[in-house]
Amino acid sequence: MSRLHSAAERNGTIVGEFDLIKRHLAVPSSSLQRRRDGYAFCDDVATGVVLGPGDDATLLSVTPNHQLVISVDTSIVDVHFPNDAPARAVGHRALAVSLSDLAAMGARARWYLLALSLPDDNEPWVAEMAEGMHTLAARCGVTLVGGDTTRGQLSLSMTVHGEVLPGQAIRRDGAQSGDLIGVVGSLGAAAGGLALWQAGERASSFLLDAYLYPTPLLAVGEALAGHVSAGIDVSDGLLADLSHLCRASGVGAELYVEALPLCRELKKRFGTAHAVSMALHGGDDYALLLTLAPKNEDEIRARLEAVGQSLYVIGRTTQESGIFDAYGQPLAVNGWQHF
Amino acid sequence: MSRLHSAAERNGTIVGEFDLIKRHLAVPSSSLQRRRDGYAFCDDVATGVVLGPGDDATLLSVTPNHQLVISVDTSIVDVHFPNDAPARAVGHRALAVSLSDLAAMGARARWYLLALSLPDDNEPWVAEMAEGMHTLAARCGVTLVGGDTTRGQLSLSMTVHGEVLPGQAIRRDGAQSGDLIGVVGSLGAAAGGLALWQAGERASSFLLDAYLYPTPLLAVGEALAGHVSAGIDVSDGLLADLSHLCRASGVGAELYVEALPLCRELKKRFGTAHAVSMALHGGDDYALLLTLAPKNEDEIRARLEAVGQSLYVIGRTTQESGIFDAYGQPLAVNGWQHF
Repeated sequence: MSRLHSAAERNGTIVGEFDLIKRHLAVPSSSLQRRRDGYAFCDDVATGVVLGPGDDATLLSVTPNHQLVISVDTSIVDVHFPNDAPARAVGHRALAVSLSDLAAMGARARWYLLALSLPDDNEPWVAEMAEGMHTLAARCGVTLVGGDTTRGQLSLSMTVHGEVLPGQAIRRDGAQSGDLIGVVGSLGAAAGGLALWQAGERASSFLLDAYLYPTPLLAVGEALAGHVSAGIDVSDGLLADLSHLCRASGVGAELYVEALPLCRELKKRFGTAHAVSMALHGGDDYALLLTLAPKNEDEIRARLEAVGQSLYVIGRTTQESGIFDAYGQPLAVNGWQHF
Repeated sequence: MSRLHSAAERNGTIVGEFDLIKRHLAVPSSSLQRRRDGYAFCDDVATGVVLGPGDDATLLSVTPNHQLVISVDTSIVDVHFPNDAPARAVGHRALAVSLSDLAAMGARARWYLLALSLPDDNEPWVAEMAEGMHTLAARCGVTLVGGDTTRGQLSLSMTVHGEVLPGQAIRRDGAQSGDLIGVVGSLGAAAGGLALWQAGERASSFLLDAYLYPTPLLAVGEALAGHVSAGIDVSDGLLADLSHLCRASGVGAELYVEALPLCRELKKRFGTAHAVSMALHGGDDYALLLTLAPKNEDEIRARLEAVGQSLYVIGRTTQESGIFDAYGQPLAVNGWQHF
């Protein structure tokens, strides 16, 4: 057994450099006031933070009559992101992945906590990672309210908190047979970006950025909460996530493969056949996959237009389980992909 | 760069063994109903869980007029626990450490999420770890409401959620000069237990169990919320945590070293001088350190008696900063220990 560090060391209370690093992770919101001992507190209606990080725990004020929506996701080096990914992208992406779960629930994003493990005291790396994270957080209106920094393999666990009105959350289990299946956002671009990264491409491009800097579609989720029958974010790949939704709802699906929204850049770089495969199987897109009653299509298109987005109808749900293309060929059956 | 796993693989949707492991981490509460696709949901007033794990996020119902109390702590192998620690202790301890933060805030514990990283598919280990965690959770009335299981260095990040009435939370910054300093729980026993473990002792004993299976003092925190002036849990060591409290409150402290509650077992195994040092500097006790106005002492003793605990008065707060013993010798100054 290796000797365990002292409690003070491992909590970073004595190690100076580690303390410096933790400062990059302090609550950046200008609405929080600094106290004499350096930690933040306020009773701010906008952020809902009654007592910020620095005490044993954070105190938050949930909006009356709202339900709390919670999710946690861990991003680990060499598993979820390449070890040479830009630090800014690592911070952005780890938060985006978790926020996408709130988007898929139709929740308003409010707060997040970061449990960060670092192998060493690389302060410049942490500063850049934190900048990527803070920038996305500010864009999404979500406030860092706590965290823990420890020694270990590079890893970021993000716990995100949102709010939704009772009965308005977008769930996986509400799809009815005969619903339209729609997608908001692009498909396959992140898989294309990862392929380019793995081929050594480093210059910023639409595809590379789709992989490194995904955008959680929070405004879309909020706009559609209470109006779609079911929804899920595309993180594992379109077929895998559609299977999850179908299984939860007890329906099957007919997928119009020709209708998949493939971006020009993806087709240009990889050809249409490969692009379709990336759209079906590639993960990490963080598009939203939705089902809707046909009678609500106009209303939903109008709501999406109001937030600058479009609906792509890519299929319909069926009574028969399994996922088939328009020619009746199985794409996935009973929640499991066949190829 | 190592090749990244596919989205499906790394999320454990295809790897069978990993799926099996995740089942040990399913919500164990009997109050949750199972749906046809295997995930839990209910609208249970007791647990507050509207929609359990299995969707993109969990839906919770916060008790009206309560504030939310949140904290996250990561336990990493070889940093926070020995790599040969019993799996049951690893699960118990990781949750206990986080729940202790809720106890220190005077919060009622409600929900937790586990972000687990595992180096391999050791199902028996996970089953035993989960049992330790679930058993403590049931004892503390806290419900597992979400999580993420990934490949990586063995690590457990616990995000815990509690509730407290507005204005009732126990904070670090409320101590006034002239308050009594009190401790509930034992000091030094965990440090003693760790020393025994490191010396190769494996047979269950009071000291070893104090280290491996700490008890978060949730009932104490709830009983004292609104009645003490400040509080913190003893995780880094008594002097370190008293320094944090004093710094936050803008006071100093006189500590009666002779009054420290040292258990018989600790003195017997290590001698009184070593036991005192372990009580002052050893971490991991998860006792509660509190300050109180002298006029409230009787009320607080009565409240502690009602939950089967006792108050040990170990000092008083002072206007002058720094921590001194009864002879005026400095123990720690300005939040930093001098030795």
